[in-house]
Amino acid sequence: MAKEKKRVERITARDVDFAQWYTDIVRHAELADYSSIKGCMIIRPLGTALWERIHDYLDEAFKKTGHTNVLMPMFIPEGLLQKEKDHVEGFAPEVAWVTHGGSEALQERLCVRPTSETLFCDHYANIIQSWRDLPKLYNQWVSVVRWEKTTRPFLRTTEFFWQEGHTAHATREEAIQETHQMLNIYADFLENILAIPVIKGQKTDKEKFAGAEETYTVEAMMHDGKALQSATSHFFGDGFARAFNIQYSDQNNQLQYVWQTSWGMSTRVIGALIMVHSDDSGLVLPPKIAPTQVVMIPVAQHKPGVLEKVAEIAKRLESVVRVKVDDSDRMPGWKFSEHEMHGIPLRLEIGPRDIEQNQAVACRRDNGEKITLDLDHLEETVPSLLETIQQDLYDQAKKRLENQMSTAQNQVEFAEAIANKPGFVQAMWCGDEACELKIKEETGATSRCMPFKQTPVGDTCVCCGKPAKKLVIWGKAY
Amino acid sequence: MAKEKKRVERITARDVDFAQWYTDIVRHAELADYSSIKGCMIIRPLGTALWERIHDYLDEAFKKTGHTNVLMPMFIPEGLLQKEKDHVEGFAPEVAWVTHGGSEALQERLCVRPTSETLFCDHYANIIQSWRDLPKLYNQWVSVVRWEKTTRPFLRTTEFFWQEGHTAHATREEAIQETHQMLNIYADFLENILAIPVIKGQKTDKEKFAGAEETYTVEAMMHDGKALQSATSHFFGDGFARAFNIQYSDQNNQLQYVWQTSWGMSTRVIGALIMVHSDDSGLVLPPKIAPTQVVMIPVAQHKPGVLEKVAEIAKRLESVVRVKVDDSDRMPGWKFSEHEMHGIPLRLEIGPRDIEQNQAVACRRDNGEKITLDLDHLEETVPSLLETIQQDLYDQAKKRLENQMSTAQNQVEFAEAIANKPGFVQAMWCGDEACELKIKEETGATSRCMPFKQTPVGDTCVCCGKPAKKLVIWGKAY
Repeated sequence: MAKEKKRVERITARDVDFAQWYTDIVRHAELADYSSIKGCMIIRPLGTALWERIHDYLDEAFKKTGHTNVLMPMFIPEGLLQKEKDHVEGFAPEVAWVTHGGSEALQERLCVRPTSETLFCDHYANIIQSWRDLPKLYNQWVSVVRWEKTTRPFLRTTEFFWQEGHTAHATREEAIQETHQMLNIYADFLENILAIPVIKGQKTDKEKFAGAEETYTVEAMMHDGKALQSATSHFFGDGFARAFNIQYSDQNNQLQYVWQTSWGMSTRVIGALIMVHSDDSGLVLPPKIAPTQVVMIPVAQHKPGVLEKVAEIAKRLESVVRVKVDDSDRMPGWKFSEHEMHGIPLRLEIGPRDIEQNQAVACRRDNGEKITLDLDHLEETVPSLLETIQQDLYDQAKKRLENQMSTAQNQVEFAEAIANKPGFVQAMWCGDEACELKIKEETGATSRCMPFKQTPVGDTCVCCGKPAKKLVIWGKAY
Repeated sequence: MAKEKKRVERITARDVDFAQWYTDIVRHAELADYSSIKGCMIIRPLGTALWERIHDYLDEAFKKTGHTNVLMPMFIPEGLLQKEKDHVEGFAPEVAWVTHGGSEALQERLCVRPTSETLFCDHYANIIQSWRDLPKLYNQWVSVVRWEKTTRPFLRTTEFFWQEGHTAHATREEAIQETHQMLNIYADFLENILAIPVIKGQKTDKEKFAGAEETYTVEAMMHDGKALQSATSHFFGDGFARAFNIQYSDQNNQLQYVWQTSWGMSTRVIGALIMVHSDDSGLVLPPKIAPTQVVMIPVAQHKPGVLEKVAEIAKRLESVVRVKVDDSDRMPGWKFSEHEMHGIPLRLEIGPRDIEQNQAVACRRDNGEKITLDLDHLEETVPSLLETIQQDLYDQAKKRLENQMSTAQNQVEFAEAIANKPGFVQAMWCGDEACELKIKEETGATSRCMPFKQTPVGDTCVCCGKPAKKLVIWGKAY
């Protein structure tokens, strides 16, 4: 009976306690559960199904652009991790160390990969010899481990799942082009499939990846106005190539260093999905990513003909949408809240009276709207309704992003904007890291990115008043 | 130029040195490469593509039978691993231990999972309350780590990839049925997709999984006559349920223990694929699992019209087979041996004379046979040729399995069979572990399984001469 009770428990209201609301959704929508390992989560069937759909979409986009998957070991010998100076400084403090195999102490400690640049570089140094071997466009779908002090499901966990692309190119220009191409794939995926509008831009030197020359990012705004870095794409220049001696002989038989990139998206985006779209009744999923798009609920299912009719319609709908029938012995009201909690975009109720009138009642998960649909045309009306829901979710998030974007000309305006209104602040910056640090210390906001679309909001740095070089988007972040 | 040379190097002949031939195929067909971590391999694009196809086939079969995927942590706290006595004894000696996170020593060591029974049990104890929660039919696709002394790519590596299914049922009967169902899915997959004939049976108590009540297995015969256990399915009874206290309240509100199973197939099967079908020219892949089924080689591709014609035909074939065109600037002979090495089942050569005569020359990878095909009917003849290749590969392996099966009535016959002829020995067994051990010590052969199809070859134990209980298949094994 404990189980029965849990399912109908109310979750904390989003406006009352955003953090608790988030945790409640994760638990009650059964996306993830805590494990007996501190900071590691169990990703439950719905969470895993979401990650599988994310995998399928991105993997197809990667393969269409010429990438192939490989599988690298999960361990990195300590000596290999130390080969690139900036990189090891960035990651060594937060790795898990394997010191024993069976009962024997290892001669050299192995870390569980926090990311795999060093492994790919080591491999590339072995397999790249001539210009014919380039470009190498590899990716892998694995989990990585970073020892975190404070963790939250999906947003920050000791182990998390991701894909990491690692490429090697003959020229600097081609590598930069790759970095942009992958960022665009992420942005398109976030906007079109997850209905999450993003700001594309470049990270400041302070915020860039350990070992990168440039880091590009897509930043999204959560419902509470905080930022979530949703994917990154790094241009490495030839720094790793020099550290790992990755050279190829060009068409004139001259040895050249390769130019490299890496790029990744992780299970964090499931956290973004929750924090952008969900509400006080539970999870809200955009139709394109929802594992189940439509749940059909037979009403008065004991009456003759109801279950048969529902099954017949489900069969028809199967070829156009991902549909499920809930003909369990629960009461319809229980089923309604259960499937709302799990974020199924559309509910179709069909009872004896509906059948008589040749109709079904559709209920939208995103706004609760009820629409009566003719049974004869469901193959057209249901997919079209799903498209509308997808678009409305995007539009709503886009409007929020625009409405919650403040502009600040000086420190006072900046502090006020951060203190009084949830959201991002756009402000000019001189390019000096001291100003960036000062803003972070005084307001808690970090530079999210220097957007590619630079539309200046002034001439002087919001912090020091000196001539500005860049428009920067600032915000508190997950 | 080192690269150029490597590609045309001959591999060791299979009959000269089987082990070296195997390693040469792995390297030269670019399935896997050594990494800087002892015992861990890098699975290269072709190996990864094979594993992805294995994933796709099995995952579909699992989902069709009601299973869902989850993702468990990669770590197991030492205390959790120790909960089931037999299980910890079986695995503790070969696990990798994480002792430090960042710069801090952990209070409790974590092992990198060698298998995940304990994690699933811990989770099941949390989420299973009532009969409504059963069955739980979970699976995960991950890698696991077992600290091995001697390793070989795919066959035995410190880290390997697999899927592990873990299920919980209300009754003993349902769990046993599940164990059989999954073994049948593996057997069908091995026989129909990988063209590897198998013997289905039960492991003896000595050979069963640590913690299992019964272990079922599918055993395949490699080209050298050795056995490779290709997948296993375990019935746990309620042993783990009692150790982890996994109980549900039944429909009469009585607490009951659940009945459990687990089952898995790993990247080892890629080793089986190599050792069953491949030859001295490289890898041979059954068409159903081959990532590329047909490679088209334009002959005299500089001549007008050749490349255009090849592209046009490739376009037509794309809808029926997985086809690739190699229009690189290499010589046709170089391309032939390159694609033979990589195991592409069918090569289509098309040159100016072929175009004139409206034909293409097809060359089968499995037996080198050349067949002239009419260009107008390639959409029918090419898929049909691939089906023939698939069937021929299976038939050939099946014949080998039958021809290399000896029968022994006593110890002398057994020793002779093992010493003189590669392959399996079928012989009767009294059921006493002492006989099993004696046979292993004296001949190096282990009991592979007690086949489900019991067709007795005598009445007395091949070792001790006492009354026999079971027909057992014996063999040396990987």
